[in-house]
Formats: sequence, structure tokens, C-alpha cells
Amino acid sequence: MPQEETKLRDGRIVRSESPLNLEMPFSALDGFLTPTKSFYVRTHFPIPAIDRDAWWLYVEGDVEKPFAINYQELITLRSATAPVTLECAGNNRNFLEPKIKRVQWRLGAVGTADWTGVPLSTLLDRAILKPNAREVILEGADCGMLEDPKSPPGELKFAHSIPLEKARRDVLLACKMNGEDLLPVHGFPLRAIVPGWYAMASVKWLQRIIVTDRPFTGYYQTIDYAYWQRTDYGRWQRGENIAELTPLSELQVKAEIARPAEGEMVAADTSVRVFGAAWACDAEIAKVELSTDGGATWKNTKLLGESNLNAWRLWEFNWQAPSQPGKQTLIARATDSLGRTQPVHHDPDRGIYMINQLLPIEVNVQ
Amino acid sequence: MPQEETKLRDGRIVRSESPLNLEMPFSALDGFLTPTKSFYVRTHFPIPAIDRDAWWLYVEGDVEKPFAINYQELITLRSATAPVTLECAGNNRNFLEPKIKRVQWRLGAVGTADWTGVPLSTLLDRAILKPNAREVILEGADCGMLEDPKSPPGELKFAHSIPLEKARRDVLLACKMNGEDLLPVHGFPLRAIVPGWYAMASVKWLQRIIVTDRPFTGYYQTIDYAYWQRTDYGRWQRGENIAELTPLSELQVKAEIARPAEGEMVAADTSVRVFGAAWACDAEIAKVELSTDGGATWKNTKLLGESNLNAWRLWEFNWQAPSQPGKQTLIARATDSLGRTQPVHHDPDRGIYMINQLLPIEVNVQ
Repeated sequence: MPQEETKLRDGRIVRSESPLNLEMPFSALDGFLTPTKSFYVRTHFPIPAIDRDAWWLYVEGDVEKPFAINYQELITLRSATAPVTLECAGNNRNFLEPKIKRVQWRLGAVGTADWTGVPLSTLLDRAILKPNAREVILEGADCGMLEDPKSPPGELKFAHSIPLEKARRDVLLACKMNGEDLLPVHGFPLRAIVPGWYAMASVKWLQRIIVTDRPFTGYYQTIDYAYWQRTDYGRWQRGENIAELTPLSELQVKAEIARPAEGEMVAADTSVRVFGAAWACDAEIAKVELSTDGGATWKNTKLLGESNLNAWRLWEFNWQAPSQPGKQTLIARATDSLGRTQPVHHDPDRGIYMINQLLPIEVNVQ
Repeated sequence: MPQEETKLRDGRIVRSESPLNLEMPFSALDGFLTPTKSFYVRTHFPIPAIDRDAWWLYVEGDVEKPFAINYQELITLRSATAPVTLECAGNNRNFLEPKIKRVQWRLGAVGTADWTGVPLSTLLDRAILKPNAREVILEGADCGMLEDPKSPPGELKFAHSIPLEKARRDVLLACKMNGEDLLPVHGFPLRAIVPGWYAMASVKWLQRIIVTDRPFTGYYQTIDYAYWQRTDYGRWQRGENIAELTPLSELQVKAEIARPAEGEMVAADTSVRVFGAAWACDAEIAKVELSTDGGATWKNTKLLGESNLNAWRLWEFNWQAPSQPGKQTLIARATDSLGRTQPVHHDPDRGIYMINQLLPIEVNVQ
């Protein structure tokens, strides 16, 4: 729908109005931190109108001392600030063929902000976990009815769980984004930030934290936001693997080219700065390579700035554009410090998510 | 589609040809054991053509001594015989409004047979379970591609898991049904029989038994054959329950009327024998009641024969048909020895499965 793609709000592409889904044109990438006004917006329901002074956060479930805490008290607790990259699990979906009837994210359902908030572990410690505690469900205030016949009947709230170990390790309950109070579209007054995970786990408009003793199987990690993971249980029948439905979790390593932008005109026989970002989960970006010959050969790009775990790394490369005019394809490829890199093709077991195959960008040399 | 409904095979209603789904007209109920030729047939894929002399059953996964066993050896192991009622999880779906585009079972996707086979526990003991063993996956040889975009890509085999405790307790690996070798449509050469559970767990054409250390999340117990179970985790926010996707398992208590059949003519002012069956999971049928006034009043029926755990109980009632001609509604209601009975309305959280609300049957008094 080209008409929709050109509709902009605060410089962002309106992918849908209701629910509101806004994408940053990735060519606008301009530094390590994404300005809040440019940050992509992903919602499932109308944005909840929350009165911060009447808002409570509940901590309950398999805990010895369930409690509720209000905003005024929450902000007196010791907080931390960290840059974290959030990426929508469906980012790059528009690169899939055939096209799927879901939000057509191109390159810009990703961004990095400084998030300030209380560590989730602080609240879990206060509640005192029972010995059987295993997962933590994060529930938002956003809710509504879904048309999906596979969804639970009636009104559904957005919720997602994380394993207890992850919840204790580095999850923040952020009240500030880039030093300012959260905007309503970004989860005001409180948003979970789950570093290194696809952003469906970074629940916005947070209102309940529920500790449970078993894997949570809510809609947003079974029917939606899940993929097929295959296990070969066999001793004799190799290849007889079984597909198991698995919630999305960790970001897959990926590099994206911001500039030149897709379809941009570049002058023949000049030096062109190719610029982008790359990210991974719980690992550093070891290298980003660029190919200008369809993946036959690769050259190392220059990594910029410092390395931050679970925040992207910017990179650049001075490319000598060919002297002959014509279409030119650029491909970036990231490898992380654990040796993980990007596949050439999308794995169909991942369905409409976890799209991190090589993403060729075409520019026009003139 | 009335044309399809009148198409019969061996006296059974052909609900679909490919895959083959056959329903017993429930008015044909004629005794405690359902003749094999009348037994309903539920398949998902083409019926596997299995050469029994080349067939092996594999036992693997989290076991110390994985092994394979052939048919000749299997039948030398000590076997047991038990009557077990199998009911399709979608039985009575045709009673739901609005109609759903799935197999339109009426009353007859249920039957009782004598099943003879080796206890599953015998094979688990031989394999020696690892201490982390928790579930047992039963995999059939039936496979194919699904059109559901939510299904795993490629060819899928039918598989379903049961908790280890259930697997050890009373599951049979049946090679005989009503004293004869299994027919191909009923799972030849081997079918799991999981007493008291909806029949999707009684995997046909069994070829693999896989012990695992975690809940299995295969297609046939997540995207399909699952329902929404709600938990209220809250201390303060009562009613703020969360829906969790849960595999179907235990049969819900139910009575069905076999005769008079739906729409049957009965003579006014005569004594009419109302006859049917009732079943429950891991409990006896305590009573079956009949209402002829739309549920305002209920009368106890007479339970016939002996009680068998996880096999149905037949019942009858001598009903004095009214002297005035007209439509007459009959409703049966079962209660089990744990006090469980049938709801008046279908719970939408159960979706297209576990349909055990009261099922009014209309007859014509003339």
C-alpha cells in the first residue's frame, strides 16, 4: 500500500493507525541514541490513558509477600540507566516473499535509547520469591478484543513472560527514556526493558508482575510471537525431528544499512560513506562486513564508538562507487563475539518473525 | 452439507473423505461394546500403509537404554485387555452456534471397545527413564502437509504427549480391538490407548515413544487441540485472570441420548424407552437424569450393566410420551462420582473442543 507508506508522523512511516504502528525511516539513523520522537512505535491495542498518580504496580503470584507500589515510591528506589536496543520481532518483514498480511516493517522497527529505571530484581527481592518460582509474567494495561479465532474470547491484556534468571539479571522497569519521562506511546508511566530480547517482552504500560512456577502460555507467546524449534530426539532416525512451538526471545544478530538509503542516487566514481548499525544478544559485535558484489566477496567495515552489550554498534565503510552507472546492490553482514552470523535465507520455521537473513539494499549509481 | 451427511460407509456417516472421518449414527448404539465396523474414524492424513513385519517401535529420548522393538517381539510381552471409551475432542461440534468450519460431528464421534495390548509402563521400564523424565511423546506414522499458516512448514507427523505419571499408570499399546487385529483405519499395527482422555492422545499407527524432560509443545497440543484455561494470580484484582493455552486432556462428563433418535416419530401416550450412554474421566457415572420439560425438572434414569472406569455406562428410562402430538425435547444429564456434571452453555474458552453442555434432542410425538 504505497499510499500508507508515504504517510508520516513526526518523520515516522505510519504502518497502521489503529492500532498505532510507526516506523523510523532507517535512513534517518543519526547517532547511537535514537531520539524519542523518532523511535518506532508498536502497539496492539489503543494506548491506555494512565493517571500516574492513581497508578499502582502489583507484584504477586508465587511470592511470600505480594505488594503494590505506586509511582511516587517507585522513583525513590535506586535506579540504573543503560542504553538498550529494542527491535520488533517482525522487523524486516517486508523483505519476506511472499508478503504476509501483518505489519509491513521495512528496516526501522528498531531503535536504541537510554533507559532509566529500577531493576526488576529489586522488586522481586522485596516480594521474596517462593522456592518454586520459575518465570515472571509482565502484564500491561493495554487491552482489547482480537479478531483471531485462535485468541482467547473476550478482552485480552498484553502480557509476556521471561525466565526468572533473566528477570533477575538485567531487566529494568523504566520510567525514563533518553532522560525524559516516558511518552504515552512508549509505555507511560512504566515499561519493562528486557535487554537482548525482541521487544514484545519489553512490556509497556506495565501494571502487574506475576511470578509463576511453570512456563506461561499466554496468547502473545504461543499463538503469536512464537516459532517452530526442531529437536531430533532420535537415536536411529536422524532427521526425524519434531517441531515444538517456542516463544520468541533473543535477538538474532543483524546488520542494517542506513545510508545510502534504498533507491538513493549516488554519484559514479566517488567515495560514498556506507553507514549503519548492527546488534546481537548478550554478545559484542565482532565485525560487520560489506559486499558490493552480491555476497561473493566481503570487506570489513569500521566499527564506531564503544561496545555496549545489548545496544547496537554503529559502523561505516567508504565505498568507491563504480564508474559505470546502474543499479548496485549493497549487503551488510554482522558477526558477533560468539561467532554467530546472518543466514542467507529466512528459515521458514521462524514464520513471520526473527528475520535476520542478509538484506540486500539497491542504490542507483549515476 | 446434507448431501455429505447422508453418505454412509459401513453404516457410518462420511464427514469427510480426505482425510477420512466417519461418524457412527449414535442411534445405532446397541450395547456396551461398539462393533469395530461401526466405530467412528478420525484421521488427519492419509492412512499409512504399514507392513507389520517391517515395522519397528522406537523408544528413545531421556532414557538410559533406548531400544527398538518389532511386532513379533512386542506380542510376546504380557498384555492386558480393558474396555475404554474413546471420544473425539470435537464430538458434538455440530451443536455449537455459530457453526465452525471443522468436522461437523454430531453425537457419534465416540465409541467403546475392548483394547488389548502391552502396558506402556513395560516399555518405559525396559528403557530405564532418566531422573529428569517428565513427559512421553507418542508419535504416529501418519503425516502430511497442513494448510494452516500457523502450522510448522513442511511435512508434519501426528504426535501428542502425556505426563509421565499418566503414561505409567494405565496407558496401553493396543494391537487388538475387540479381540481382533487393529484395522488400518484404527491404527494398525499399534495404537496407544490413553483411558479417560480425549482420543487425540490415543495416537494411531504408533511408531515412536519419546521421553522428554519438559512439556511438549507440538502442533497438535498448542495450535490445535488446545483451549484457554484462566488463572487468577491476583491478590487484589479479583477477576483479573490470565488465559493460558492448555493442551486438551481429560474427557468431560457427558450423557448422550441414542434412542429415540433425533427427529424420530414416537407414538403419543405410549411408554417409550429412552436409551443412551454416559462417560467421565477417572470417575464412575453416579447418575444420569432425563428432562422432558426443557431442564425444569429431572428424573433419574436406570444405569445398566457394570461400572468400568473410563468406559461408558449405558442407561435407560421409560418415558411416557404425552398424549398431545407435537415436538418434544429430551435432555440427558450425567453426574460423576466426583460430583462433576454438565454445564448448560458451552464455555467459549474451550473453543471448538470439550463440548459437553446439555444437548437437547427433539423428537416428534404423533
